[in-house]
Amino acid sequence: MSIYLDHAAATPLDPEVLAAMQPYFSDAFYNPSSPYAPAVKVRREYEAAKAKIASIIGAKSGELTMTAGATESINLAFAAGDGHIVTTAIEHQAVLAAASRHNHTLVTVDKNGRVNPDDIKKAIRSDTWLVSIGLANSEIGTVQPLRKIADIVNAVRKNRLAEGNKTPLYLHSDASQGAGQLDLHVTRLGVDMLTLNAAKVYGPKQVGLLYASRSVKLKPLVLGGGQEAGLRSGTENVPGVIGMAKALSMADSRRVEEVRRMTALRDKLQAKLTETFSDAVVSGHPKHRLASHLHISFPGIDAERLVFGLEARGVLVATGSACAANKGTRSHVLIAIGLDDRTADGSLRISIGKHTDEAQIDAAAKAIIDTVNIEKARMA
Amino acid sequence: MSIYLDHAAATPLDPEVLAAMQPYFSDAFYNPSSPYAPAVKVRREYEAAKAKIASIIGAKSGELTMTAGATESINLAFAAGDGHIVTTAIEHQAVLAAASRHNHTLVTVDKNGRVNPDDIKKAIRSDTWLVSIGLANSEIGTVQPLRKIADIVNAVRKNRLAEGNKTPLYLHSDASQGAGQLDLHVTRLGVDMLTLNAAKVYGPKQVGLLYASRSVKLKPLVLGGGQEAGLRSGTENVPGVIGMAKALSMADSRRVEEVRRMTALRDKLQAKLTETFSDAVVSGHPKHRLASHLHISFPGIDAERLVFGLEARGVLVATGSACAANKGTRSHVLIAIGLDDRTADGSLRISIGKHTDEAQIDAAAKAIIDTVNIEKARMA
Repeated sequence: MSIYLDHAAATPLDPEVLAAMQPYFSDAFYNPSSPYAPAVKVRREYEAAKAKIASIIGAKSGELTMTAGATESINLAFAAGDGHIVTTAIEHQAVLAAASRHNHTLVTVDKNGRVNPDDIKKAIRSDTWLVSIGLANSEIGTVQPLRKIADIVNAVRKNRLAEGNKTPLYLHSDASQGAGQLDLHVTRLGVDMLTLNAAKVYGPKQVGLLYASRSVKLKPLVLGGGQEAGLRSGTENVPGVIGMAKALSMADSRRVEEVRRMTALRDKLQAKLTETFSDAVVSGHPKHRLASHLHISFPGIDAERLVFGLEARGVLVATGSACAANKGTRSHVLIAIGLDDRTADGSLRISIGKHTDEAQIDAAAKAIIDTVNIEKARMA
Repeated sequence: MSIYLDHAAATPLDPEVLAAMQPYFSDAFYNPSSPYAPAVKVRREYEAAKAKIASIIGAKSGELTMTAGATESINLAFAAGDGHIVTTAIEHQAVLAAASRHNHTLVTVDKNGRVNPDDIKKAIRSDTWLVSIGLANSEIGTVQPLRKIADIVNAVRKNRLAEGNKTPLYLHSDASQGAGQLDLHVTRLGVDMLTLNAAKVYGPKQVGLLYASRSVKLKPLVLGGGQEAGLRSGTENVPGVIGMAKALSMADSRRVEEVRRMTALRDKLQAKLTETFSDAVVSGHPKHRLASHLHISFPGIDAERLVFGLEARGVLVATGSACAANKGTRSHVLIAIGLDDRTADGSLRISIGKHTDEAQIDAAAKAIIDTVNIEKARMA
C-alpha cells in the first residue's frame, strides 16, 4: 500500500461521491431534455445539483456554466472579452495559454509567490478588461490576497465610470486548487468569475464549472443544442455534475477541521525535514499557504531521482506540477519566485489529502530523509 | 418497468462498461502525467484505450482527439479552417450552429432525407474547405451515401491540384448516431474527420472524439497543459475514455447481428402501425435507414399528447430530436423533407436499442395503437 502525497495532481474519487453518481449511469440515464417524466426528474436533479454547488459558492444556479474541467472553464472565461489582460507569472498553464491569445501583462510575485496588489493596480491599463489571479498556486500553495485585488478592481471600475470609460473590468480566479481548504464564496472573494474543478476535491475527472456574475457576457466556445443557457452545448453530464455537487458539499462541510488537521500534518513533516536538512528550502508563503502543500527543495539533489527513490519506498510525490512534470522543463513558478536552478532542480511538491494520516506522514518523513541522505552520499 | 424506446436521445451505461471504468475512479485515479509507476500505468492504459478505439475505426491513435462529446468534436472540426462550408439542411444542431460561424451552403435532401451527391458537388466552391455530412440522421435515421460524397470530394481535390488551387478540402462526418449499426472504418467511409459520441452506444456521457487524418491541421478550442497533443488540454478523462473504448468495442463486435435483430423488431412495429393506420406516414429512407429508427407520423394528432399518453402506458418515446424537443419549435429535419405541418406535428421518433425485445415491441405497438385511437376519437 503506497503513501500517496500528490493530491494536487489528482484525488481519488470518494466512494460517497461515486455512490451519489451511480443511479445516473444505468438507471436514471435519460437525456435531461427529453419530455417524459423520468427524464424531467433527471433534469430536476441535475438542476438541484447545480443549485447546491451555487449555494456553496454564494451564487445563483443561472450563473454557473458546467464544463469539462478547469481548463475549459478558464478558456471560456478568457473568451468573454477582447483587449488587455492582467495576470501573474505563476498561473496554471491553462491561464497562461489562454492569456497568450490576448494582449496581456504578467505581474511578478515575491519570493513567497505572493502578488502585491499594488503591482496589479499598476498593470491595469485603460483597455484592460480582465484580471485573472489563481486563488492558490498549485505548485507552492501560496494563497493570493484576492480580496485586496478585488477592491482595486472595484476602485478602477468606479474611476472608469466617473471618466466615462465604458470598458468593463472583470476579476476571474481559478480556485481549483483552493477548493476544500479556502472560502469560495464569490461575494466575499470579490470575483466576477470563478473556475472550479471537481477532480481536485475527490470528485469525477473532466467536470468543472465557470461561475460568471450576470454582468459578464460569456461567449460560448462550442455551439449546438443550447444546453447551459447556450453557453456550453452538449448533452449534460448528469452523473458528473451530481458527483461534483456531492464532492464540493463534502469538502465544504469538513473544510475548517480538515485545514486544521492537514496543517498539523504538513507542519510536522516540514519540521522533520528542515530539522534534518539545514540546507532545505521551503517555498510558498509561510502563513498564506494551502494546508495541503509542502514544497521543499534539496539544493544540488536531482528531484527526479528523489521521486523514483521515494516510489521504491512506496511514497508517491511530484517534482513539480503534473502538467509540466512530463515535459522536462523547469517550473515557471519556481523561476518566478527566484529559486536558483540548483535549488529548483531539487524540489519536491508534497501535497497531502483527506486520507493522509500521522502514520503516513511519519513513514514519508523517514523515507524522504533516507532517500535524500542516499542521494547526498552519492553526490559527495 | 417502462419500455424505453428513445435510444437516439440517450442510452443507459452498460454494466460491463461501468465495470471497465470502475478501477479508474478511486483506485487507479492518478494523473496520467505524473511520473511514478502507478500513474505511468494509467497513462499506458489510457493510451491502450485510445488505440483500441482507433483500431475499430481503422485509424491511428495519434489521429484521435478525445473530447467531452460530439458537440465539442464537431466544433473542433469546424474550427480547423476558414472559408466556405458545405453541409445539409438536416444536420444535428451542433453542425448547423458551428457552420453558422462560417460562410456556408445548406444542401437540401429528398423526401426520404437523403442528400444527392451531385448536389454536394454543385455546392462546392473554389473556397470551400469543408464538407460535413452526418452519417445517419438522428431523427429519421436516414443513412447518407457518404462513400459517393467522398469520391466527389476526392475528385475536387484532384482538380484543385491540377488547377493549382491550394485550398484544402476535407470531409467530416458526425457518425454519432450510426455507431453500433454502421461500418465506421474511416478509409472505407472516405472521411478526413469523424465525430463519435460514447453516450450513444451505452458508454459514458460527455465523452467523445474527433478523428482527424494527418492532413488536417486542427486548431485547439481550449489551451492549457498540452494534453491530446496540444489539441485539447485538460487532465485526461481516464475512466471516460476507457469506458468509450469498451462501449465501442462491444457495439462493434455485435454490430451485424444487432442490426439484423433490431431491423426485424423495427419492421414488425412499423408493419403493425401502418397496417392499423392507413394514413400513418413513415419518414426516413425505406432501405438506407438505421435499424434502430422508426419515425412515424399520425397526421392531425398532437404528438405531445401521444408522448404523454404513451408515458402513462409505460412507453417512452420522443416527439423529435431531444435537443429540439424542449424548445417548442418544429423540427428542421421534418421541414427539410417536406412534411406538412399537420403531419410533422403528429410525429413520434421511436428508437429501439439493445435491451428492446419482441415482447416490448408487441406491448409498445398495442400502447401506440390504443393511444392514437383515443386521440383520433377525441378529435372526431
